[in-house]
Amino acid sequence: MFGGKELRHAISMASRWSRASCNLRSNLYRWNKTFIHTSSCHRKCELTSKRYQVKRGKYNEINEENIKFFTELLGPHRIIEGESELEGHNTDWLDTVRGASSVLLKPKTTEEVSAILSYCNHHRLAVCPQGGNTGLVGGSVPVFDEIIISTNLMNKVENVDTWSGVVRCQSGCVLEALDQHVADFGLMVPLDLGAKGSCHIGGNVSTNAGGLRLLRYGSLHGSVLGVEAVLASGEVVDCMTAMKKDNTGYDLKHLFIGSEGTLGLVTKIAIQCPPRPQAVNLAFLGLSTYENVLKTYVAAKSKLGEILSSCEFIDRSSLECVEENLKLKPPISSHEYYMLIETSG
Amino acid sequence: MFGGKELRHAISMASRWSRASCNLRSNLYRWNKTFIHTSSCHRKCELTSKRYQVKRGKYNEINEENIKFFTELLGPHRIIEGESELEGHNTDWLDTVRGASSVLLKPKTTEEVSAILSYCNHHRLAVCPQGGNTGLVGGSVPVFDEIIISTNLMNKVENVDTWSGVVRCQSGCVLEALDQHVADFGLMVPLDLGAKGSCHIGGNVSTNAGGLRLLRYGSLHGSVLGVEAVLASGEVVDCMTAMKKDNTGYDLKHLFIGSEGTLGLVTKIAIQCPPRPQAVNLAFLGLSTYENVLKTYVAAKSKLGEILSSCEFIDRSSLECVEENLKLKPPISSHEYYMLIETSG
Repeated sequence: MFGGKELRHAISMASRWSRASCNLRSNLYRWNKTFIHTSSCHRKCELTSKRYQVKRGKYNEINEENIKFFTELLGPHRIIEGESELEGHNTDWLDTVRGASSVLLKPKTTEEVSAILSYCNHHRLAVCPQGGNTGLVGGSVPVFDEIIISTNLMNKVENVDTWSGVVRCQSGCVLEALDQHVADFGLMVPLDLGAKGSCHIGGNVSTNAGGLRLLRYGSLHGSVLGVEAVLASGEVVDCMTAMKKDNTGYDLKHLFIGSEGTLGLVTKIAIQCPPRPQAVNLAFLGLSTYENVLKTYVAAKSKLGEILSSCEFIDRSSLECVEENLKLKPPISSHEYYMLIETSG
Repeated sequence: MFGGKELRHAISMASRWSRASCNLRSNLYRWNKTFIHTSSCHRKCELTSKRYQVKRGKYNEINEENIKFFTELLGPHRIIEGESELEGHNTDWLDTVRGASSVLLKPKTTEEVSAILSYCNHHRLAVCPQGGNTGLVGGSVPVFDEIIISTNLMNKVENVDTWSGVVRCQSGCVLEALDQHVADFGLMVPLDLGAKGSCHIGGNVSTNAGGLRLLRYGSLHGSVLGVEAVLASGEVVDCMTAMKKDNTGYDLKHLFIGSEGTLGLVTKIAIQCPPRPQAVNLAFLGLSTYENVLKTYVAAKSKLGEILSSCEFIDRSSLECVEENLKLKPPISSHEYYMLIETSG
């Protein structure tokens, strides 16, 4: 078990080590990613509808007239059709679920999303909102022939308020790109995930993503100050006031955070970004018992409270499994438990 | 305008000064409290219903049979009747609004609250939930003859999880008492208000109180992990899972945070408490322009990021007004703006 002094020392040691032997965190990401890719099958996976024996709802099938409407609304280049073109959008990243959508729409504005949803609602056409499609539980993939509404082109950062740190952007902004954008203003997005290079901030909000920074910056219910969403009817719900202490009426935006698109398609977000930390340090610890993991966690929270940004643990068999399969050597070994502790500030 | 180095220096100076000349923060509280009490009239204020010309809803008036039911449910000592006994509960702290309730009930458990609300709903009796009655906008005071349901006796701390820092308690816990309770476990409630000596945590949640620590610990939407509430029908809504990353279903507890009792009466709360800081330091700064206030705020957030716990400003005329009326000498004077910056950690 580690106390405050030992922790600070271990962090300083690990930081020196990590600079010398490249970045530990990105190594762990690589382990993780490669491991998942290696272990998943690469043949085309079964249709979700067959695999889980689900029945299609009483929705209409898309026809020429519908396509004509969408073409007039978006132009020909923002409608994608054809099985091979939609292959990546009909399956998830792990290749475990598969839908059979034949049309993907790429709106650029809230008004276009509203027009699409209003039309689909009126004509009883099923839809599936899709962000970066990085989810691991199939939520962003169609099950049958739903029209995929992609937020790929809704990637504008509308405003960065340098006084308050509040950033307003469209929901299709890629997390990493948004973080790089706000870095120019000395800010950081209070969210960090393995999928940050392709996941969308709208998807993060719709799934209430926790990520690596949850411990320090809290959940999105705390940092998301505003949400704009379009209901199935096409009605736009504007909860974008972005005032930290706005207590007027019910705080409806919280219902959209984590509701996975079932209440509406999130089109805009206002998020409170903290100042970008000037230094990040890492410690990788080996421990003998699970109780010591808990004690070290409590010690880290109490002694490093202000600067602790991440705290994770790995057990012996998980580390050995990664080591054996990927031939990557962990910095220390022969312990029952391991902890990765990150500080920033 | 102050940069990072100057700020740290100012804070160290101010801390030394504040220890020598007693606590600056509590002085400011005293100014504030005395000022409000001096300026409000001490004669009995007009009935809210007359003042705002509002019409009573079609509710039944309370009768002997109702009283008999409540007496059987709670026993004779937890029903308060009579104008003088209810005086403090029929008016607010500022003496600006006044209701005419004739009965106050003091349940101790969720089951009792449920039985009361179910009965009142069935018999069309209007109710007014009341916590510490410290609100400044009259939300906790009846308008007509509503039955006051007080959370005064619902003050049990049910559990303190020292590993996670999650505290479960009844909604009638007084904020300061709860904070003192968790202090024994090295924790603090992430909320601090001028009214902490009498306000209830349930009222804090129902009004989504921000308080002095908002800057560091965020809003209650981030730190309140669980809520139990009783609907008007008597139905108990249990959102007390208290798991930080619980994303199953819609996160309904957020609707109760800030809804002022209009959706239900909050009976229990699970709140994430951070480790108690080991030192608190204060700086009181004088500044010449409002732009410098903004710049200092940004500098404080970026340079003190990890330990900044509070940041407030006062303008010249406000400080002079307090000085003149209360004969209290501020630590520095003759500036257009003043800032109070607190660090803890």
